[in-house]
Amino acid sequence: MPGQPSQEPAVRVAVLGSGNVGAALVELLADPARAGEIARRAGVGLEVVGISTLDLDDVRSSAPWFPRHLLTLDAKGLVERDDVDVVVELIGGIDPAKSLIETALAAGRPVVTANKALLAAHGGPLAALAASNGVDLFYEAAVAGAIPIIRPLRESLAGERISRVMGIVNGTTNFILTSMTEEGREYDEALAEAQRLGLAERDPSADVEGRDAAAKAAILASLAFGCDVVVDDVHCEGITGVRRVDVTFAERLGYVVKLLAVAELVDGGPDLSVRVHPAMVPKSHPLAVVRGAFNAVFIEGEAAGELMLYGRGAGGPPAASAVLGDLVVAARHLRSGAAVPAPTRRVPVVIRPVEDLTSVFYLSIDVLDRPGVLASVARVFGDHGVSIRSMEQLGLGDEARLVFLTHLARGGAVTATIEDLGRLDVVDRVGGVLRVVGPEDPDLLGAGA
Amino acid sequence: MPGQPSQEPAVRVAVLGSGNVGAALVELLADPARAGEIARRAGVGLEVVGISTLDLDDVRSSAPWFPRHLLTLDAKGLVERDDVDVVVELIGGIDPAKSLIETALAAGRPVVTANKALLAAHGGPLAALAASNGVDLFYEAAVAGAIPIIRPLRESLAGERISRVMGIVNGTTNFILTSMTEEGREYDEALAEAQRLGLAERDPSADVEGRDAAAKAAILASLAFGCDVVVDDVHCEGITGVRRVDVTFAERLGYVVKLLAVAELVDGGPDLSVRVHPAMVPKSHPLAVVRGAFNAVFIEGEAAGELMLYGRGAGGPPAASAVLGDLVVAARHLRSGAAVPAPTRRVPVVIRPVEDLTSVFYLSIDVLDRPGVLASVARVFGDHGVSIRSMEQLGLGDEARLVFLTHLARGGAVTATIEDLGRLDVVDRVGGVLRVVGPEDPDLLGAGA
Repeated sequence: MPGQPSQEPAVRVAVLGSGNVGAALVELLADPARAGEIARRAGVGLEVVGISTLDLDDVRSSAPWFPRHLLTLDAKGLVERDDVDVVVELIGGIDPAKSLIETALAAGRPVVTANKALLAAHGGPLAALAASNGVDLFYEAAVAGAIPIIRPLRESLAGERISRVMGIVNGTTNFILTSMTEEGREYDEALAEAQRLGLAERDPSADVEGRDAAAKAAILASLAFGCDVVVDDVHCEGITGVRRVDVTFAERLGYVVKLLAVAELVDGGPDLSVRVHPAMVPKSHPLAVVRGAFNAVFIEGEAAGELMLYGRGAGGPPAASAVLGDLVVAARHLRSGAAVPAPTRRVPVVIRPVEDLTSVFYLSIDVLDRPGVLASVARVFGDHGVSIRSMEQLGLGDEARLVFLTHLARGGAVTATIEDLGRLDVVDRVGGVLRVVGPEDPDLLGAGA
Repeated sequence: MPGQPSQEPAVRVAVLGSGNVGAALVELLADPARAGEIARRAGVGLEVVGISTLDLDDVRSSAPWFPRHLLTLDAKGLVERDDVDVVVELIGGIDPAKSLIETALAAGRPVVTANKALLAAHGGPLAALAASNGVDLFYEAAVAGAIPIIRPLRESLAGERISRVMGIVNGTTNFILTSMTEEGREYDEALAEAQRLGLAERDPSADVEGRDAAAKAAILASLAFGCDVVVDDVHCEGITGVRRVDVTFAERLGYVVKLLAVAELVDGGPDLSVRVHPAMVPKSHPLAVVRGAFNAVFIEGEAAGELMLYGRGAGGPPAASAVLGDLVVAARHLRSGAAVPAPTRRVPVVIRPVEDLTSVFYLSIDVLDRPGVLASVARVFGDHGVSIRSMEQLGLGDEARLVFLTHLARGGAVTATIEDLGRLDVVDRVGGVLRVVGPEDPDLLGAGA
């Protein structure tokens, strides 16, 4: 009979966490018709045998389809139950997620998790623990929601010499920047709108300060370059300093402003740069069209050339879809009697500080509108060897705003320039500092000489 | 020592075919430094032990790095050698590729192939043969070059209810259409340019008539919907009828013309439509920005939402990169002692003819410039119940061109309309017929009423 579930017993799944993603996953698996369809397409049946929660009366579990009889407050007990084959960890955070995953792996149970914070802090040791126990540890949902990015990096590109991974991996900040670009909003207005739409938390700092993106950058860097990068290795600048004027000016030069997570070989390697910062992306670049809450990861490889993987980066159902894909593969591996852990022998790596990297920079500087100001400001650039490619002055009442594009400059020299500019009496504020993505030769930039 | 190859013996690879892709793959594996790096990152060493060719003096194998001592004219003998662990088939076509792959699978050897023609004709039986022998059959390079699309569909989206897969999967035609759009070239000029640049064959028919894309559509449909679709099931229209005027008109309405391979559920399923045809894609759609020889596949799933996978669709190195990814996974499976074949229990499926599908249509019709012509033409539309949403007339000397957009219309009714129009004395030619992708409600179209 078409659509008939597998005759083999179903793989028994423990779901830790009943939040957005956990509830979406349970919904996908709770409907018998859909579970049968998944079983047919996946070649293996999946049965949820327990769901841990912090609150037995959680509103999500009151849905009519929710199997309330499977709920338990005892996550550790659930992981250790004899009738559990695979553990799905959707609690998030370090504790108790880490010890629950360790318990499962040590007991020889494959784990699927969406926990980016945990992987960005302890991914290497957890992968080693999985490998030494011969079980799978999958985490497709930890980066960029439903977009297949972890598996392509682990498998499809396993033989590829990757030179750079560059992603828009935080939907909240991309929504805010898109709103500033397309609706002409100031940062605060755009943030308020994102909060109203449920796309930003009441405390948005993890998103807007780039820490969420930094965790994902660490995970991507570790996979792309076969080394252990943790979140503390990632240089991180957020979007709180980006102003409408910066976005408008970028637009006029043929760029859009995006918060990028970048992991790349420096000067051909082996040293890496791993960082998160707002950047001017040429409108012709595939990443430029990634709007609103969408995510995308752009990969440059020696043989593969340029690749981009694009999709919904957040939300319960997209993340649940990614978890389900991992779960199906883990279940197939269980049925065929073998896990296929990714290699864990990783090379030590040097992460180069952003001060060492060269880039074209955009800076906007608020100054008092007085004669001689430009000379003072320009002298500071010169003192640090930062060559100015173009400057434009915009009036602002008593103040003026100077908008600079540099030639290629060392990050450290630009940082020192900004510090010294801040000490000038005539400088009110150094806002919007953006790195420019694109042709390394600044003469190819759209700006006039 | 970092970069040290695996201490286990390398997995021994037979490469069938020494063309573009075969030579690029051998180049990736021939350099000891690079092979060591691959071994480290992949967790497994790969060693080419034989390369079959049709011509021992082929120019590609004269490169200094090419291991000429591994060449053989005897492909079948190579497949059967005792010291071969994995077979890579890069010959292309049905014979002798099919029997070589069958021999390898029957002998329990995993196979990696890039052979879209073979898979689009015999993919189901070959997958079944692989599964019954407990070995892997991988073919990431068969669709869209280095873009990871086969593995995401087989694994990451294995639990996803996919409603539609829509791809730009032929770089030649996308280059021609991009050139017509951006350079204002006529079809013939754009084709000639593609041929000059080596992006089109001297006989371009397989590309421009859509047959190459149709093979890929069959492969994508089979994976996305868990059924056996073969190339003969795919309705196929090419781009030879697309004229500059069509592209210009589409542009003015906010669309770009693309050759799409589409596999989708009809009316929510389970019936499918699988087809290749030129279409008007809204400029705001992610596929619209796929320019030149690039490829992309856009996937719509119930939980995952919208995904797009983008990259270089052709060329030796990108295809070799995809083959290498497959090879690494097959080698890891060999080392861990288990293949993980995808499920082969597939449901019978009904492929609905395009005549049954509704779409908004664009048609351009060359007519004699006489009074009453529009009335005659409009009557034919009316006779077939095809409702006209907008019409524009462009003068052309003695002739005029009428450009129509319909409301939603059945494909069969439009086909009948075109046939009857062809019988009118006043109609010179019905050119450019394009389906419009996008809002199903034609009042959302950019065209005026």
